[in-house]
Amino acid sequence: MAMPPYRRTATEFLSSGLRVEDYVRSILDRIALRDSAVQAWAFLDPEYVLSEARRLDAIPLEQRGPLHGVPVGVKDIFYTKDMPTQHNSSLYKDHAPGVDAALITLLRSAGALIFGKTTTTEFASVTTGTKTKNPHGPARTPGGSSSGSGAAVADFQCPISLGTQTIGSIIRPASFNGVFGFKPTWGAISREGVKICSLNFDTMGFFARSVADLELLADAAGLEDDERPIAPFTIEGKKFAVCKTHVWSQAGPGTANALNMAVKLLRDQGASVEELELPEEFASVRPSHLQVFECDARSTFMNEYIRAKDQLDPTLVSFVENASKISHRDHLTALDNLAQLRPKMDLIASRFDAIVAPSVVDEAPEGLASTGNAALCGTWTALHVPVVNVPGFVGDHGMPIGLSLVTGRYEDRRLLKVAAAVAVVFEGGGWKSNL
Amino acid sequence: MAMPPYRRTATEFLSSGLRVEDYVRSILDRIALRDSAVQAWAFLDPEYVLSEARRLDAIPLEQRGPLHGVPVGVKDIFYTKDMPTQHNSSLYKDHAPGVDAALITLLRSAGALIFGKTTTTEFASVTTGTKTKNPHGPARTPGGSSSGSGAAVADFQCPISLGTQTIGSIIRPASFNGVFGFKPTWGAISREGVKICSLNFDTMGFFARSVADLELLADAAGLEDDERPIAPFTIEGKKFAVCKTHVWSQAGPGTANALNMAVKLLRDQGASVEELELPEEFASVRPSHLQVFECDARSTFMNEYIRAKDQLDPTLVSFVENASKISHRDHLTALDNLAQLRPKMDLIASRFDAIVAPSVVDEAPEGLASTGNAALCGTWTALHVPVVNVPGFVGDHGMPIGLSLVTGRYEDRRLLKVAAAVAVVFEGGGWKSNL
Repeated sequence: MAMPPYRRTATEFLSSGLRVEDYVRSILDRIALRDSAVQAWAFLDPEYVLSEARRLDAIPLEQRGPLHGVPVGVKDIFYTKDMPTQHNSSLYKDHAPGVDAALITLLRSAGALIFGKTTTTEFASVTTGTKTKNPHGPARTPGGSSSGSGAAVADFQCPISLGTQTIGSIIRPASFNGVFGFKPTWGAISREGVKICSLNFDTMGFFARSVADLELLADAAGLEDDERPIAPFTIEGKKFAVCKTHVWSQAGPGTANALNMAVKLLRDQGASVEELELPEEFASVRPSHLQVFECDARSTFMNEYIRAKDQLDPTLVSFVENASKISHRDHLTALDNLAQLRPKMDLIASRFDAIVAPSVVDEAPEGLASTGNAALCGTWTALHVPVVNVPGFVGDHGMPIGLSLVTGRYEDRRLLKVAAAVAVVFEGGGWKSNL
Repeated sequence: MAMPPYRRTATEFLSSGLRVEDYVRSILDRIALRDSAVQAWAFLDPEYVLSEARRLDAIPLEQRGPLHGVPVGVKDIFYTKDMPTQHNSSLYKDHAPGVDAALITLLRSAGALIFGKTTTTEFASVTTGTKTKNPHGPARTPGGSSSGSGAAVADFQCPISLGTQTIGSIIRPASFNGVFGFKPTWGAISREGVKICSLNFDTMGFFARSVADLELLADAAGLEDDERPIAPFTIEGKKFAVCKTHVWSQAGPGTANALNMAVKLLRDQGASVEELELPEEFASVRPSHLQVFECDARSTFMNEYIRAKDQLDPTLVSFVENASKISHRDHLTALDNLAQLRPKMDLIASRFDAIVAPSVVDEAPEGLASTGNAALCGTWTALHVPVVNVPGFVGDHGMPIGLSLVTGRYEDRRLLKVAAAVAVVFEGGGWKSNL
């Protein structure tokens, strides 16, 4: 039996000759079947989506863009001119400013079909869970803050989706949902039209079910290395590092096991893998990251705090009120510390083809109240380096676990080439989606 | 004869007992008289302004905010929910997304009357002049990119206005128009809802005709030092530095003369003033700043470039196309270099009560085609430190020249205290507005 359209990745759809409307109808049917179990959407208007599909089908072949008709789920902190943007905040209920974020414009220009808005934790800034459930285990969190974007792609409710990461909001849900997540270099994609959480860390990124799809998105977003890699990456003879980071003490057995398997799988393919221990000063990354994050939130959410602090998550209220009493002096020390570590990290990363690191502390935990622990993703966000979560491993309860691949800053395209090859190897990690 | 209402600063208006409508009518009369000569406004609807004034007058005394009824001119790259935001770009003609920038919300919450939109160069990112003329000399530029905000405050067409600075877009027009300009510490005020030019440098700030007004704005924006200075600053016995920066070779006779006079005026009041030569590595600030600016613009304007590059300023097209062929490696070297210089600058600044520096190369040049040279303001923007332009001096053609006061990062409130005292001293510099 032929694969139903909704299961196709963007790349598969684009080469299938399928009409956009047929692809979209199949996806809408899938959503009708699964939405009550997963609840990935903050806004979705099937009639509008179908009208967009028909509009796209009517465009002559020679005028079509490289993402023609590809449905994109959009985290609900990106402005979209044709849909509300509500930030999972009662302060922004039905908020519809009628403007597109820069990345939305780039995707529409490439022919993408902006499909709907996916759930986010409040302002993508807290770990309080959303309505969204993990499609692989409905009693478990899909992670956050890009909860709906991770779950929707995993559950075949859209082939690709947009997320943002300030600590671990792309990589964590990608790992929890068993999909690819890509956080590019900080600043490589414009953040215009996306609600600010922390100016120093917020990074625009993507979810997909294949690295080929991430490459399409990287093209549309204009991501370029200094030298664009052309040849596919082959594992044999290449040099990897495994880096547990200074937050490793928080890792559980699922992630420890995944990392051990990854080393073995890579070595089996003829790669060298050495353990990389970051210099002691990198132990400061986590505390510096959290301090700057809190201080940034102080100015970011003053606006909402003054309008209606009773409608703001207590964590954000405490940030605006500076409950932790972080002085600007400490704030700047942390900010400057991270800045001086970034070129050092690039230099360390340059010794390897890629660094393999934990994405999460373990498989998605039970419960929807919290989106889980982001400690293990934070290092790379703070250091501004690109990361891809590659799925492949499995936890004690059968849930997916991914690992992070990391390179130096602005090696986004090279990282994707490495990820494509590593993804095949990590298929030996034992994870298989039942969806 | 009593001072006509339009000449009052915000602070003077607030203590006057004047109704908002009376203040606003006087200002609108002033604009009717002067608009053809100055052309500071990109959008202004007198009827709407009057209806807002009446709405504010109807608010009971006990519910009024600290900026009750104060008219604010808004640079046309800040979103305002009740007015278009057009960025001086044909791509955004009549663009009206119906949302307020964070700073607009803070000001409205404090009772401010959002008065109209002031002219800006295209996306506040180029030096091509606007329609706006310098009110002190209509054949001369008012500076940019916050052209209208500087000119409107100088010409008594509003008491305060908003600007942004990425290189010299607040301090330059403040100096050219003979008013106070305040660029706070980078990141101290949220940039939510303001068009991005360069994420690493764009800073939200203010124009006013008194430092007392800047203090009101600093309150409304939530600017706080680690220790809020309470007592007024007195000049006697205090320690100033004069810093010409590594860009001094571009300075003209007007600025050289202003700096010499400033030293004498401060010493006459019993302050010590020493010459500060920044360490040699600070010579890299200007080239690093320009490199990061260009590279940032590459991702920032990709959106508009893809939509319609023929409608984009050629400079911005060249940035997106990376005509200068700046590699990411060079981009990161420049970014990291500036980051490591910032704490060093704070340390140097901590040896003085404030640093006195040139604001501009000289008085506003003739012609409206270019908004002038921003080289001398850029050092402080790149280093993220707060700056106040204090007017007081005069150029060879009778145009105003201001000087910059600078402190370390997050000493914004202390800087304003120093500026209040220095402003009185600089009144001995010979500048007198004829408006």
